[in-house]
Amino acid sequence: MADKVLIYSRFPKTMMARFAERFELLDTGGRPAREVFPAEELAGIRALLTAGGSPLGAEAMDQFPKLGAIVCYGTGYDGVDLQAAASRNIAVGHSPGANAASVADIAMTLMLATTRRILVADQYVRSGDWAASKPSPMMRPQAGMPGRRIGVYGRKIAARCAAFESEIGYFSRTRYDLPYQYFPTLEALADWCSVLMIAVRAGAETQHVVNAEILKRLGVDGYVVNISRGSVIDEKALVAALSDKTIAGAGLDVFEQEPHAPDALTALPNVVFAPHIGGHTLESHVAMQGCVLANLTAFFEGKPLPYAVRSA
Amino acid sequence: MADKVLIYSRFPKTMMARFAERFELLDTGGRPAREVFPAEELAGIRALLTAGGSPLGAEAMDQFPKLGAIVCYGTGYDGVDLQAAASRNIAVGHSPGANAASVADIAMTLMLATTRRILVADQYVRSGDWAASKPSPMMRPQAGMPGRRIGVYGRKIAARCAAFESEIGYFSRTRYDLPYQYFPTLEALADWCSVLMIAVRAGAETQHVVNAEILKRLGVDGYVVNISRGSVIDEKALVAALSDKTIAGAGLDVFEQEPHAPDALTALPNVVFAPHIGGHTLESHVAMQGCVLANLTAFFEGKPLPYAVRSA
Repeated sequence: MADKVLIYSRFPKTMMARFAERFELLDTGGRPAREVFPAEELAGIRALLTAGGSPLGAEAMDQFPKLGAIVCYGTGYDGVDLQAAASRNIAVGHSPGANAASVADIAMTLMLATTRRILVADQYVRSGDWAASKPSPMMRPQAGMPGRRIGVYGRKIAARCAAFESEIGYFSRTRYDLPYQYFPTLEALADWCSVLMIAVRAGAETQHVVNAEILKRLGVDGYVVNISRGSVIDEKALVAALSDKTIAGAGLDVFEQEPHAPDALTALPNVVFAPHIGGHTLESHVAMQGCVLANLTAFFEGKPLPYAVRSA
Repeated sequence: MADKVLIYSRFPKTMMARFAERFELLDTGGRPAREVFPAEELAGIRALLTAGGSPLGAEAMDQFPKLGAIVCYGTGYDGVDLQAAASRNIAVGHSPGANAASVADIAMTLMLATTRRILVADQYVRSGDWAASKPSPMMRPQAGMPGRRIGVYGRKIAARCAAFESEIGYFSRTRYDLPYQYFPTLEALADWCSVLMIAVRAGAETQHVVNAEILKRLGVDGYVVNISRGSVIDEKALVAALSDKTIAGAGLDVFEQEPHAPDALTALPNVVFAPHIGGHTLESHVAMQGCVLANLTAFFEGKPLPYAVRSA
């Protein structure tokens, strides 16, 4: 009999196909597990698959008294209460780096689409306004990439930015041996750069660190690109800064309450939106699924998870 | 008295401001010169400024019997009949390389926006469909950049592509000492690649070289990005290939009859459009204007143009 895996979050069925070949999947479709499956079924659950951003705390874990493994699809695991998992001896796995290139690419896509105003450009052509010689909404040329200062708050986007002849600065708690300028605070990075790329790992300590003050430091020619988690930005402050032109624009793949982007935000013309598709490419899914399969297989064989989360 | 320069094409006035400080500008606003200025005024014209893509043949040159210099704003000069200019002893200048980075960046923007379907993504969030849990239009993951084969037909985009962990191939008449795979024909490049980046210099020999056969070779997962000139692609064949899914999509900054993109093209959802803004960044304009000023100044001082077109 196949080992059972509870699908705790809402995932498209097509994404689950590879797992269904190896395991018996109990798919909640993202609804509360106890509304979908009888208590005796849940009592036997030893492993579950979740989206790392979905809240999964002590109370949720206690629905599954035999739970031994929480496997996150993707890199993030910010929704999982690691302390609660540790005290219940539950292993937590994820897919480190599997979607890093895909996410870096959506960051670049959003930066370029926003700074080159591609939505406005596309609409100007598509509507016929260009053909009718109506005034161009992009008459005033904007700064391009060469010499642009890009501040990276987090991971591996810098090499892509550097290929665009831009200057790269970064802030993180640790200074790495990198050929880019290090800033000891996010404030200093925001003062220096014109694009703030938020790629930091989300967690309690990064909650709302990009606030009204940081946005003000970024300035009127500044852009924010967020491909990390919505929680890193104070979304109300962002809406205000975008509305009153404290900053020039934003490219957002993530939001505080997904899938709910506030109306005040989605009404803004100076933002390019994506529905959390950073990791949504073929190669990225194949790599993430490989990590999930390896984690689940190891767990059911009684071995340590090969892609385990290291708690901080 | 300031030297007179005829503004032969339609340019925004703001772009002409630097020239107006040094020269007396006779601005046609893109209309036929003889409709705007009296014949005796045109008879004295020694230099004109044009957009390189605007047709400027023997007959047009003969309106200005004293014409000694045709200065193109930008890199291209495909609209200028070089033989006619040579036989009239008219120097032709342009702005080589001044907008290369800006154009390469719009190429990357269009490639990423198209392959990551950013218009669809933005609309899914902006419309509220994502929040309403309506089915995602991008459920099926697409190929990402790592390992993607990008075929470059022309100039300097390769380094940017390489930063995205993509494989680069190129076709040109000459094989260069480059760390990228050389293809001896455009057909072979199209067979190999999934994104065909058209960055070749436009001219009679490149007219419609990207035709139905090349598009068919590119294939169902293939994309075309054109930041060169609309004339390089057979636009009717492109509309057909996009409509019947012979290829997956296109990113277009240039069109056969600008500013008129055909309705059949602008109606397509699998295209990202831009209104010929490749070179439209601050740095690019400053650099292009520098070349124009240097060319005009040299001409009126009786010196050779520093940024002269080398005829093939």
